[in-house]
Amino acid sequence: MYNNSVNLSATAFLTDFYELMMAGGYISGGREKTLACFDLFYRNVPDNGGFAVMAGVEQLIRALSSLSFSEEDIDFCRDKGFSEKFTEYLKNFRFECDVWAIPEGTPIFPGEPIVKVRGPILQAQLIETLLLNCINHQTLIATKANRIVRAAQGRKVAEFGSRRAHGFDAALYGARAAYIGGCDATSCTPAAQLFGIPCLATMAHSWVQSFPSELEAMCAYASEYPIDCILLVDTYDTLRSGVPNAIEAFKRELLPRGYRPTGIRIDSGDLTYLSKKARKMLDEAGFPDCDIMASNSLDEGIIRDMLIQGAKVDSFGVGERLITSASSPMFSGVYKLSAVERDGKMIPAIKISENVSKITTPCEKRLWRLFDMSNGKAIADVMTLDSEDMADVRSYELFDPDYTWKRKTVEGFVARELLVPIFKNGECVYRSPSLTFIKAYCAEQVGTLWEEVLRYEKPHNYYVDLSQALWDEKNSLIEAHRNQG
Amino acid sequence: MYNNSVNLSATAFLTDFYELMMAGGYISGGREKTLACFDLFYRNVPDNGGFAVMAGVEQLIRALSSLSFSEEDIDFCRDKGFSEKFTEYLKNFRFECDVWAIPEGTPIFPGEPIVKVRGPILQAQLIETLLLNCINHQTLIATKANRIVRAAQGRKVAEFGSRRAHGFDAALYGARAAYIGGCDATSCTPAAQLFGIPCLATMAHSWVQSFPSELEAMCAYASEYPIDCILLVDTYDTLRSGVPNAIEAFKRELLPRGYRPTGIRIDSGDLTYLSKKARKMLDEAGFPDCDIMASNSLDEGIIRDMLIQGAKVDSFGVGERLITSASSPMFSGVYKLSAVERDGKMIPAIKISENVSKITTPCEKRLWRLFDMSNGKAIADVMTLDSEDMADVRSYELFDPDYTWKRKTVEGFVARELLVPIFKNGECVYRSPSLTFIKAYCAEQVGTLWEEVLRYEKPHNYYVDLSQALWDEKNSLIEAHRNQG
Repeated sequence: MYNNSVNLSATAFLTDFYELMMAGGYISGGREKTLACFDLFYRNVPDNGGFAVMAGVEQLIRALSSLSFSEEDIDFCRDKGFSEKFTEYLKNFRFECDVWAIPEGTPIFPGEPIVKVRGPILQAQLIETLLLNCINHQTLIATKANRIVRAAQGRKVAEFGSRRAHGFDAALYGARAAYIGGCDATSCTPAAQLFGIPCLATMAHSWVQSFPSELEAMCAYASEYPIDCILLVDTYDTLRSGVPNAIEAFKRELLPRGYRPTGIRIDSGDLTYLSKKARKMLDEAGFPDCDIMASNSLDEGIIRDMLIQGAKVDSFGVGERLITSASSPMFSGVYKLSAVERDGKMIPAIKISENVSKITTPCEKRLWRLFDMSNGKAIADVMTLDSEDMADVRSYELFDPDYTWKRKTVEGFVARELLVPIFKNGECVYRSPSLTFIKAYCAEQVGTLWEEVLRYEKPHNYYVDLSQALWDEKNSLIEAHRNQG
Repeated sequence: MYNNSVNLSATAFLTDFYELMMAGGYISGGREKTLACFDLFYRNVPDNGGFAVMAGVEQLIRALSSLSFSEEDIDFCRDKGFSEKFTEYLKNFRFECDVWAIPEGTPIFPGEPIVKVRGPILQAQLIETLLLNCINHQTLIATKANRIVRAAQGRKVAEFGSRRAHGFDAALYGARAAYIGGCDATSCTPAAQLFGIPCLATMAHSWVQSFPSELEAMCAYASEYPIDCILLVDTYDTLRSGVPNAIEAFKRELLPRGYRPTGIRIDSGDLTYLSKKARKMLDEAGFPDCDIMASNSLDEGIIRDMLIQGAKVDSFGVGERLITSASSPMFSGVYKLSAVERDGKMIPAIKISENVSKITTPCEKRLWRLFDMSNGKAIADVMTLDSEDMADVRSYELFDPDYTWKRKTVEGFVARELLVPIFKNGECVYRSPSLTFIKAYCAEQVGTLWEEVLRYEKPHNYYVDLSQALWDEKNSLIEAHRNQG
């Protein structure tokens, strides 16, 4: 349940200690008001997929809307040796940054800014950990959920992972992210309560075990919950006792009262084989409308395999491998400085690395997605300088930022700007859509991607290009550093 | 920072909706006070290791100590169609179970009860999700941390994972669990604030980028934080600029004021190679006491490899792969009915499965660890019936529960009971030791395991045996079900 208090964790300030150390340093240097621009972008798509699904913006907004430092926080900083000037600053803290984000549910690609922050360097730096934690977590789970839901090919998917989530928040916000990614329901009560996600329940093996016999257990449950009645059939022996007893319970407890069974759930054994046998038994007993739900360590790979082998499954309960994104449990979001004020001017900033893929793209940027007007499909994303506007561009030459001779002129597109303002001078200027809207928007936007990008194995690399002006800036900075070295 | 409110999430009631459905069913059937006994045990050691490290008990105690249902919770249940009788029950809810747990920091093994709950079946069932979520998460991270810390062979390990943790709780309680498992410090400010874990900080690349030159950035930082000064050296070019500039900054800002440098941090590139070169440069510059810290996607495998190749690293910053237990991100704790009251008597309960390893061990149990008196090493764990007492046993025949002809008589041991009472009739009867104590206890208890159990690859299977009486009970139940089938 959700005892009101839980979401307060969203107002607590998660920060790595080095953010405070640097903040203290900015204060001492008198540089706390120096303007800086940061990009949050990510490096790799989880599970080597073709795209990720943006999520976590609403919780980020809540967290940023309530940034403040308590007396205990101030005392802690004083104990750690921070200056009085710094603790005074924290005491009077008011968030003053501008923030942009890509709306939740949007497909996003490596290397492009998905959140952009501009403001006093102290503040823009201070929110790094909180911002990354929030976006990395929910984006990871929304992305995994979308993979699983697509694998289920229209069958329903319920999120069952609370017990294996990495703590309370991971269960709660993971359920939210899973819903955005396409899941139909959750087992997590507080997520149902707080976010209005449909919740789904059957019974545990312990319910069945607590009765003298399986049949009595099933009859008791069906009698209590004749509507949406789903019976768990694998406590002792799925085909020899579970399914026959479920059929008997349906006949005894539901039919006489005018109800039809909703389903049975198989939670162990060879789900594909058992589902086919169970389907036959249910059909022969006059319950062709009784769904079969499968659960037990499922993920998109197993679901695809089951369906290829003709499993007779109508819905999937997916737990630990969804809520932890088990096969790829980290989202690689990073937060990097892109420009900083010097002598009153914004100077592009770059991070050079031995590892070429870790070199950042400098400058305050805008991000555009080009949609083909003839079929609505997404053609490419383009990062431009802040001063460039693609809204009215009609013809555009895309080029590969690494292999610049790979060029292609596109026409007949509309360019949509992806980053939308969510804070202006510290005030929230964005109203999150409803979760139902976000979920539908996600499905629709994933639908704008070519099948080649949706592929699970070796998907096509969606184009994320730089405008010529941005590319020139980046390369001149790399050259400058090379010559310095 | 930790704005007071955060830990309230521990008081919210995480529950899967089916727990409520079953609770409603127990009420309707008039069976809510039927006594039941549940075991929480786990199935597989993460990363195919030899043992796990128990953690999460303190948060479990907090959560169970504050179980209650708010008006909103009651309204939610009413909306979901639960009976007035059930919502009345929730309104007057008072926790009445007995709970036992293995103390935090203890090595634990698959199949043995690590938490045991006895009480009214409704309540014992209702806390399932909360209990699993809490123990599964922290045990997972403590176990991973212990692997990483052992791989570092005495070098310091700091937990740096907040930004990639699965939400706020995962960062906060993950840092706590990592400390139990053996980490020396965390970067997570609220964890430092709330749990008193030492916190450690350096700087981000953005600090360096925000200055006109790397040297100026380093000098500014060293001047501000001359004590425990660690400089990040890989923003542009570790060996050509980073280390030379750090040396220069140490000379300019620390030496004249009488300070010595604490360290440099290398966060990209070939850490092994760079550390050797950097070591040489630091030594030659007169800083043999300046530590080298390495970070960047480290885990126990990489650390072991680095040390085999002679990396000159004094401490490790470990982030995402620790805080998500990336190579094995799920802890396989389950919660199963072991006995239930029928006609005033406790009847053993079993869950049969096609999958033999999923058959549960019935009966209310006690769990004993046998320590060799000659060297303090752990010999085996033994599960017994509740009525069996091993405290005064002097000679004992262990046998493999699967291959029962494998037998061995042990003598010269002390048997210590592992499960300690934490709740009696709903009242907390346990006081958690300090975190420092738990961490030290963990290291000491891991030290009681044979090297063969500590091995990373194909560790020896530590014995978790059943007493003859318990084995007989289990097998007679399996036989009974076989004959029924």
